[in-house]
Amino acid sequence: MKLLQEKIQAEGIVLSDQVLKVDSFLNHQIDPQLMLAIGKEFVSRFAQDQITKVLTIESSGIAPAIMTAMLLNVPLLFARKQKSLTLQNNVYVEQVHSFTKQVTNEITVSKKFLEEGDKVLIIDDFLAHGEAAFGLAKIVRQAGAEVAGIGIVIEKSFQNGRAKLDDAGFRVESLARIKSLTDGQVRFVEDSAVLTAEGNGSHA
Amino acid sequence: MKLLQEKIQAEGIVLSDQVLKVDSFLNHQIDPQLMLAIGKEFVSRFAQDQITKVLTIESSGIAPAIMTAMLLNVPLLFARKQKSLTLQNNVYVEQVHSFTKQVTNEITVSKKFLEEGDKVLIIDDFLAHGEAAFGLAKIVRQAGAEVAGIGIVIEKSFQNGRAKLDDAGFRVESLARIKSLTDGQVRFVEDSAVLTAEGNGSHA
Repeated sequence: MKLLQEKIQAEGIVLSDQVLKVDSFLNHQIDPQLMLAIGKEFVSRFAQDQITKVLTIESSGIAPAIMTAMLLNVPLLFARKQKSLTLQNNVYVEQVHSFTKQVTNEITVSKKFLEEGDKVLIIDDFLAHGEAAFGLAKIVRQAGAEVAGIGIVIEKSFQNGRAKLDDAGFRVESLARIKSLTDGQVRFVEDSAVLTAEGNGSHA
Repeated sequence: MKLLQEKIQAEGIVLSDQVLKVDSFLNHQIDPQLMLAIGKEFVSRFAQDQITKVLTIESSGIAPAIMTAMLLNVPLLFARKQKSLTLQNNVYVEQVHSFTKQVTNEITVSKKFLEEGDKVLIIDDFLAHGEAAFGLAKIVRQAGAEVAGIGIVIEKSFQNGRAKLDDAGFRVESLARIKSLTDGQVRFVEDSAVLTAEGNGSHA
């Protein structure tokens, strides 16, 4: 998605060869028009999939996910993240490890909002090691519902989450795929396609 | 706001005479069309105020706030909540006590996203004791910016937050004002106006 790539190039801050900070438009300050455009792009990719619910995780997933859910005209559900959990019977729980923060959180979704027959689109802001996406997918399956696909705003393609999700058979649609963050530069997967393939890998 | 009142009556769960659960459309599952309608209502109330930024707090404030920001065509900024804080120079910090959860969080906003001259609309999902709203307002003032107003989705008018914000001189616009939750019933401030005033207090 060209608009998103341009925004990342203009405002993203490369903190290391592993970490990209996009707190001016996605993770702290949020650009609502960009979120709407992101929602439209996800809808164009999943329009044929009879989605019944969008699922994300607090907090940074909520803005892109609510736009997607609005345009699909289905409810949004967001998983809650918590460090410790009092035992509850009425929620689905999965463990999610954050490599960035080096903590394991429990993510929870109330059982009453997911049911057999739901076709769920999972949306998240970042894909790195895939922990959050797998946790959300497991919750969908606990409910007997179907993961229709996984929509990611920014994928760090040099980390292993994407490959693991592909291997597990999930359909993943990432709007910006980052090939590397070395030398303080953001390089997109599409950029290398331009160089190595037939010359037009820079699709939106 | 009539649509919101109807949704609360239809789906809100009165857990006690202090606690209303609205996790089917606002706090866990979210109704995006309702959020859009809420955004429109906030815009109609603050359209003349030259808002430059919307400020909310994670997580449940984000959905109504992003719709408001989208329609006002300004950025959204959400404060982060955390239990302990490593000392940082680049953020504004305020203490916010949650009476419901009996914890005090620190809320933070990066200094680079608020500046003198900003006219900030604060949006939150609930107003009870006013702790979050005051915390956000203090952050705006730390930045030398102006609080143009405070927009609340659901106000528990029987708790003291509204009165405290009024006394402090803030303009508060609450879309649903709950007078009481006794006997498992939701009663709105407007309902009592119907009985005590000229018979038409149930405006949207």
